[in-house]
Amino acid sequence: MTAPFVIVGGDAAGMSAASKAKREGPDRDVIVLEKGEWVSYAACGMPYYVKGTVEDLEDLVAVTPEEFRQERDVDLRTGHEVVAIDPQAKTVTVEANGERFDQPYGDLLLATGARAIEPPFDGIDLEGVFTLRSMDEADAIEDYVTAVDPETATIVGGGYVGVEMAEALVERGVDVSIFEMLPHILQPFGEETARVVEDHLREQGVDLHLETAVEGFAGGDAVESVELADEGAVPADLVIVGVGVAPNVELAEEAGIELGPTGAIATDEYGRTNVADVYAAGDCAEATNAVTGEPDHVPLALTANRAGRAIGSTISDDPTPTGETAGTAIVKAFDLGAARTGVIDPERAREAGFDPVHVTIEAPTRPHYYPGATDLTVTLVADRESERVLGASLVGHEGTKRIDTVVTALTTGLTVSELQNLDLAYAPPFSPVWDPILTAAKVLVGKLDL
Amino acid sequence: MTAPFVIVGGDAAGMSAASKAKREGPDRDVIVLEKGEWVSYAACGMPYYVKGTVEDLEDLVAVTPEEFRQERDVDLRTGHEVVAIDPQAKTVTVEANGERFDQPYGDLLLATGARAIEPPFDGIDLEGVFTLRSMDEADAIEDYVTAVDPETATIVGGGYVGVEMAEALVERGVDVSIFEMLPHILQPFGEETARVVEDHLREQGVDLHLETAVEGFAGGDAVESVELADEGAVPADLVIVGVGVAPNVELAEEAGIELGPTGAIATDEYGRTNVADVYAAGDCAEATNAVTGEPDHVPLALTANRAGRAIGSTISDDPTPTGETAGTAIVKAFDLGAARTGVIDPERAREAGFDPVHVTIEAPTRPHYYPGATDLTVTLVADRESERVLGASLVGHEGTKRIDTVVTALTTGLTVSELQNLDLAYAPPFSPVWDPILTAAKVLVGKLDL
Repeated sequence: MTAPFVIVGGDAAGMSAASKAKREGPDRDVIVLEKGEWVSYAACGMPYYVKGTVEDLEDLVAVTPEEFRQERDVDLRTGHEVVAIDPQAKTVTVEANGERFDQPYGDLLLATGARAIEPPFDGIDLEGVFTLRSMDEADAIEDYVTAVDPETATIVGGGYVGVEMAEALVERGVDVSIFEMLPHILQPFGEETARVVEDHLREQGVDLHLETAVEGFAGGDAVESVELADEGAVPADLVIVGVGVAPNVELAEEAGIELGPTGAIATDEYGRTNVADVYAAGDCAEATNAVTGEPDHVPLALTANRAGRAIGSTISDDPTPTGETAGTAIVKAFDLGAARTGVIDPERAREAGFDPVHVTIEAPTRPHYYPGATDLTVTLVADRESERVLGASLVGHEGTKRIDTVVTALTTGLTVSELQNLDLAYAPPFSPVWDPILTAAKVLVGKLDL
Repeated sequence: MTAPFVIVGGDAAGMSAASKAKREGPDRDVIVLEKGEWVSYAACGMPYYVKGTVEDLEDLVAVTPEEFRQERDVDLRTGHEVVAIDPQAKTVTVEANGERFDQPYGDLLLATGARAIEPPFDGIDLEGVFTLRSMDEADAIEDYVTAVDPETATIVGGGYVGVEMAEALVERGVDVSIFEMLPHILQPFGEETARVVEDHLREQGVDLHLETAVEGFAGGDAVESVELADEGAVPADLVIVGVGVAPNVELAEEAGIELGPTGAIATDEYGRTNVADVYAAGDCAEATNAVTGEPDHVPLALTANRAGRAIGSTISDDPTPTGETAGTAIVKAFDLGAARTGVIDPERAREAGFDPVHVTIEAPTRPHYYPGATDLTVTLVADRESERVLGASLVGHEGTKRIDTVVTALTTGLTVSELQNLDLAYAPPFSPVWDPILTAAKVLVGKLDL
């Protein structure tokens, strides 16, 4: 009997691996050790629970623990925390119900995820100050909003969580301020897209402060105000800190498992770490960037699901690459969508050896004569010499899923001229003759030809 | 002084070529000879004029004749019909205002378009029997509907025109029947997509008859009934015949310009015919199929615009390929969208040397917990041995523009496994974690692995 496949962490990467491994090799024991109680949940849906769009927190659970145990025959143990790995003995040390024991493994998957970064702000432990990373936190925020009925909320950080929580809290009737340290929100989307979203947030009544550093929070038991570096204190009945995430790598590090340049766990194309029979996937692990070919840390759901699933195959004697990441992301901000993929930041492009050239255009999502057309702002980036497509960012009221065309183009190494010649779908209710992506490519070809 | 660039036909291909040629070489004379009065119009928008979505027929004109003449310096001559080409003398013979003259050319572009096929039905010349290809026909249909206020309409043929006109006429309060000779409507979309659209048309009150041959029309001055091969006569106050188009190639043929296997004008990758300095583009010309590499005839707007534009560059000493066609199409049918690309028909795939394998799946456009999710039906086709993506068809209430991901994949020669690993955009308001295209790819990979 092969020793069991042991998985540390029961969310996207872990449960995808468990399910796939049981499908490929039903006879092998698959043990998932999850320190919390929630498994296989859609973290990306949490802001919509706070907003009220999603009624029950349980609705965000894709597959319940019972289904994993009963229908998929996965030995899922919630409330089980792995505290150490012994790669020589091929065991993990587990703490559960006040006990400690060693669990042998044949293959081990680290799917320990990431945690919200908590900057050393004064007063970060005050009541009413939250990060949003776990289901318990989503639950706590919703409870707090319902119980306290805050008049004002401050969001620290203008990333995905900040933008989505601004929408959620405005919907709940709260006056929302966002404080962003950088010159623009949504940094990975580039300045052109960020500006459009910033204008829209302000139109929606969000009080947006760029280049504004928060120093801490003040109050009695509960938070009452936010202390800014330059502008003094502003009142806040609720604070959401959304300044990014850090991979949970301590367990791996202590076991001698190598981290990569991004600080997440280094893996090869099959998700293997430098230690035999130990894999890593999801928000704790690196993936290869489809444009630069370099290790990257993109803690998003699809990457995690895909890598977990691939590793479930690989440990079942069907070696399957985990796939590259294009850093694709899409976010809703009130009535707008914003999407991005690849390398947009010129500095990052130059570090990867490219000479980036970009254009930003506005093009309608349908012909002028067809009702409902709105402008899509497309930023497209290519390398000057090779003319290869490097990245793109879109923002508009509809049509931002068109980013997938650019994802496919940059993953396959298309040039801008080749992108320009794609036979994309046209009919008046769906698109102008020249899809906005094609229009951006035409303009960028023109710029590269100069 | 270089002899002028002469263009025969003033719609998408012709006017794109004219505009591009003047931008690239403002000093060269560009003469467009158009036998009708309308130029540069969106034929795809005509059903929406009949429907009432588009108020004025003029709204469908992208650039007016005056703009071409004044702002773009194009010598546009409407009411000018080219009746012969002399490739030796490098002249075309033109008839206009009852006169006939020869016009010399340096380069010549044939952009003569296609015409609606008119089967030899009895009574096809009756009042109230229309095809829909030209702006004048759109105008006439709208006038007729307004004047006659028909109770019943029959549409012969369940292609794009048939489906779009069914929607338009139902909106105008007419009882609509469609008669389709083949077992399914929308033949290029494949049976799985067609079935979904057929069910929807019937839900919308369209009386749909498959495998039903029309023999002719009867009436006094105006049409009153449609004669069916097997079922006798059915009443019809209005008839739309939409059984396909045929390329206008007579002028080319008489001048010794070669046609290709599809019956349209054969061209190379730059749009050149077999005769020196004579190009062809748009609905009268072939294009190379991106999947099979063979000549194909796909008379659609983007192909025409793109080829015309490329030829405008090529004749200006900037040789530019016209681009391949993937046979991409998208059509609205009441509340549904249907899209297709590549090679879907198994017989056609086999003729091109492939061993096609396909799956059809239903997947939601958003996660189950997010409001507004609807099912998208995805048919994905790949070659068994190479596992290359060959084609796809989508149908659903939203999200059919996702076909563009498959367009990009099959143009670049991706395998299904590579398609499955694309980092497509995910957030709950826009997509489930696994986009429906990825889900289809996963299922097809599983089928190919068996």
